[in-house]
Amino acid sequence: MTGIHYIEGNATVSDALRSIDPRTGREAGEPVPVTTPAELAAIADRARAAAAPYAALPLATRAAGLRAIAEALGDHADQVIATADAETALGTARLTGELARTRVQLELFADAVEAGAFLEIIIDRADPLAKPAPRPDLRRMLVPVGPVAVYAASNFPLAFSVPGGDTASALAAGCPVIVKAHEAHPRTSELCARIVTDALAAAGAPDGTFAVVHGFEAGKELITHPAVKAAGFTGSLNGGRALHALASSRPEPIPFFGELGSINPVFATPGAIAERGPALAEAFIGSATLGSGQFCTKPGVLFLPAGHGLADDLATAAAKAESHPLLHQRIRDAYLVGAAALAALPGVTTLAEPGDVGPGEGFGVRPGLFQVDAAAFLANAEALLTECFGPVAVVVDVDPADVPAILDLLPGSLTGTVHLADAEATGTFVQGLLTALAAKVGRVVVNGWPTGVAVTAAMQHGGPWPAATSSQYTSVGETALRRFLRPVAYQDTPAELLPELLRDDVAVTVPRRVSQAFGA
Amino acid sequence: MTGIHYIEGNATVSDALRSIDPRTGREAGEPVPVTTPAELAAIADRARAAAAPYAALPLATRAAGLRAIAEALGDHADQVIATADAETALGTARLTGELARTRVQLELFADAVEAGAFLEIIIDRADPLAKPAPRPDLRRMLVPVGPVAVYAASNFPLAFSVPGGDTASALAAGCPVIVKAHEAHPRTSELCARIVTDALAAAGAPDGTFAVVHGFEAGKELITHPAVKAAGFTGSLNGGRALHALASSRPEPIPFFGELGSINPVFATPGAIAERGPALAEAFIGSATLGSGQFCTKPGVLFLPAGHGLADDLATAAAKAESHPLLHQRIRDAYLVGAAALAALPGVTTLAEPGDVGPGEGFGVRPGLFQVDAAAFLANAEALLTECFGPVAVVVDVDPADVPAILDLLPGSLTGTVHLADAEATGTFVQGLLTALAAKVGRVVVNGWPTGVAVTAAMQHGGPWPAATSSQYTSVGETALRRFLRPVAYQDTPAELLPELLRDDVAVTVPRRVSQAFGA
Repeated sequence: MTGIHYIEGNATVSDALRSIDPRTGREAGEPVPVTTPAELAAIADRARAAAAPYAALPLATRAAGLRAIAEALGDHADQVIATADAETALGTARLTGELARTRVQLELFADAVEAGAFLEIIIDRADPLAKPAPRPDLRRMLVPVGPVAVYAASNFPLAFSVPGGDTASALAAGCPVIVKAHEAHPRTSELCARIVTDALAAAGAPDGTFAVVHGFEAGKELITHPAVKAAGFTGSLNGGRALHALASSRPEPIPFFGELGSINPVFATPGAIAERGPALAEAFIGSATLGSGQFCTKPGVLFLPAGHGLADDLATAAAKAESHPLLHQRIRDAYLVGAAALAALPGVTTLAEPGDVGPGEGFGVRPGLFQVDAAAFLANAEALLTECFGPVAVVVDVDPADVPAILDLLPGSLTGTVHLADAEATGTFVQGLLTALAAKVGRVVVNGWPTGVAVTAAMQHGGPWPAATSSQYTSVGETALRRFLRPVAYQDTPAELLPELLRDDVAVTVPRRVSQAFGA
Repeated sequence: MTGIHYIEGNATVSDALRSIDPRTGREAGEPVPVTTPAELAAIADRARAAAAPYAALPLATRAAGLRAIAEALGDHADQVIATADAETALGTARLTGELARTRVQLELFADAVEAGAFLEIIIDRADPLAKPAPRPDLRRMLVPVGPVAVYAASNFPLAFSVPGGDTASALAAGCPVIVKAHEAHPRTSELCARIVTDALAAAGAPDGTFAVVHGFEAGKELITHPAVKAAGFTGSLNGGRALHALASSRPEPIPFFGELGSINPVFATPGAIAERGPALAEAFIGSATLGSGQFCTKPGVLFLPAGHGLADDLATAAAKAESHPLLHQRIRDAYLVGAAALAALPGVTTLAEPGDVGPGEGFGVRPGLFQVDAAAFLANAEALLTECFGPVAVVVDVDPADVPAILDLLPGSLTGTVHLADAEATGTFVQGLLTALAAKVGRVVVNGWPTGVAVTAAMQHGGPWPAATSSQYTSVGETALRRFLRPVAYQDTPAELLPELLRDDVAVTVPRRVSQAFGA
């Protein structure tokens, strides 16, 4: 956190966040005040008051609000991209793509809201003949859980931040949202907050449906506030674990959906290496250094068949890799420490030496690449399989006989990737590899790269711990809204008292499953 | 816990659980040894080993295993019911019904497994024209999370115990199960364990798919064992909170699905009282004292319009209510303490005096019923809204003007019930009442009683805290298996390497959602 105390005269006026230009390491732009406890309480109260009226809006209005946000982000694209670039140094091209993805994400959820399948409506009509007992009329649908806290990430200042996927999916589910902005891009967060708030208000959402808070203390108060009923988080293992513990130990525990760290292993088969080894080496480095290696899905470890002969290709690609400054000083510092720790492990050869690019260059770094054999890898697997954020990766030379032991040691990951030649797909080795990877990850990728997460209905962005706190959910893709919903069943309820979509006489606009009578 | 140290000669041989006959308070039957740490470790290892082969069985085989358990329970019905009755005093009629429900539950999940909708398959084909980027082929399905720990309840020795809903839904999801048996019915648990284990083995499930452990320490070791990947629990708030904390603070946290305590409020309108007041009073007492008030869905508080004139009807019904002994001594003791605490609150009138039925009658008690006005209720709402397990309930006399404040104070519950006259269903008071209740509960019941939980697709048995640790799930009904599943997406994966049900060329036997191409 970059909070600074401002003293005017004799009074402490307030804490404020300064955005730092990663290209220079210097403060830039106006400070953004941190949220005081009184402000946070007022924001939480407004969210609580907004919960019922926002949930009660017609689905079409809820969808229109999401589309209005997407449109408003487009209207302010130049300003949003320029502000985000000044705070993140991610570059205009990347941020233009990220803004497009953020808008597509909002529109995807708007489509899902209108389609209504996410309500998971099930109608079981009364059945006096049911066994073992007569059955009442039961009608189930999902309803919003209430106000959601969203903890924004530093590495996607738009798509996983104020107007990002957690916000979009919680709003789509019918929940008010309070975003804890990331300290690394406060001005982008404030700008997006105004855009989202104004768009929702214009679309008819009640006051209090959306707000942004700033500062570390506000983030802690938010997760323990009684008005908050669930939380989404994208960030570090330590931060996620701490917030998860707070969420679980409240007087009223709430679900916490954290996407934490991931090593994203990649395996390449002998067939793939024989067919396209040098191209694979280059593409691996491209994926591992994309966005300066600051993706949750960065492939952090590559298992190659021993004798692959690609060390020079890998080293050359790493030396040539474009790198822009890291997002903020803590990431830069952690990168340098983590990469040095990898280099110092027994049996580790340096193919590309990581490091600071030196004074005057902000948070710029050089990519790091290490090579290790299977025996040395197995001796220090935990250290070599711990995510190091930034442009660094480890290449492991393995024999097929080593692979089962390696698979056993792999921690949960967002993704697991296999590169193979077509003819190998029917072989038992590759089939066993896919099966083992699927048991450890949320997404299996074949002959591709894990970076670049498609925003679709079938996407799964999550996985067994530590990839996520709950492997049963995704934070990207249409089903992400399931995190913020809970079922309610109505038993023998007269039509006048049922939610409209559960009535018999309604023109059915959403999919409903009407069960067979068991006893009939 | 009823563990007793046996000393033979100089050696502590082992802990063992004795079942106690609630009708006499005396030990009965052979002792059941507690599970040692070494035994628990071996059981967990076998479950870990069974996870992949059990998950890989064809869905038809998995369903056949569930049906085989149901059939075997039927084959051993007399022995199961007699053993359970000796340990619980619930009576043959109730246990015959519970066994039928347990079998129906297993068959419901078998049907669900065969139907395959629970796999939630979504197929998004590749789309090179998708915006903002070309889209890969993505195919998602749900897969089992791995071995599941089930913590059995005392109050349903079959339906929420060894062969109960958590076991059935976890097996249906494709997960091995280790049940921590409840100490109050160890012999029933052992008998059912043999029946379930043998039936699964005969149906082709691998060794290790199912096991039962006994003892408090084994229960603690189970929740923290690395092989265990999720847990289901039905029981007390304190026990559930402690296990939830252990599950959340493991090195690898796991999801914990606890169904804890519930007050299950009931509201009756002036119209309902005018139409059928005395019958309502009698039916309320019937529901509140059913099974000696030992249901999770027992209606613990009844809000009646002031001036209802039903105090005598309620008192008479409570005095006449049949009561059998409580399940075990701790429940009896907690009932007596809890009921006395309610009686001692300011403004509380006793309509039926709770108490012990006296020596020689085991854990038998007399039902308790209390009356309080709205002002006294609001002054001590937390105490009056805390679940007291056993045949006790509170009647609150309220004016319509009191209802909003009462609704605000209601904790999360499994159920919320409204009794009304038909003509009132269109009124704003009743509509507001239903809306407010739906925000607090998992199941809204109209003109019925919450006890008796139908086992169907639309059932919701769960609710906001403290009814459940996670309001997003149910522990009864077809969707209960969603607790033990997680999504995996396959990206650009050749058919040979896809799970069969995700392939294009397979004869589709399960529902699949094939998405539109966004960019098309």
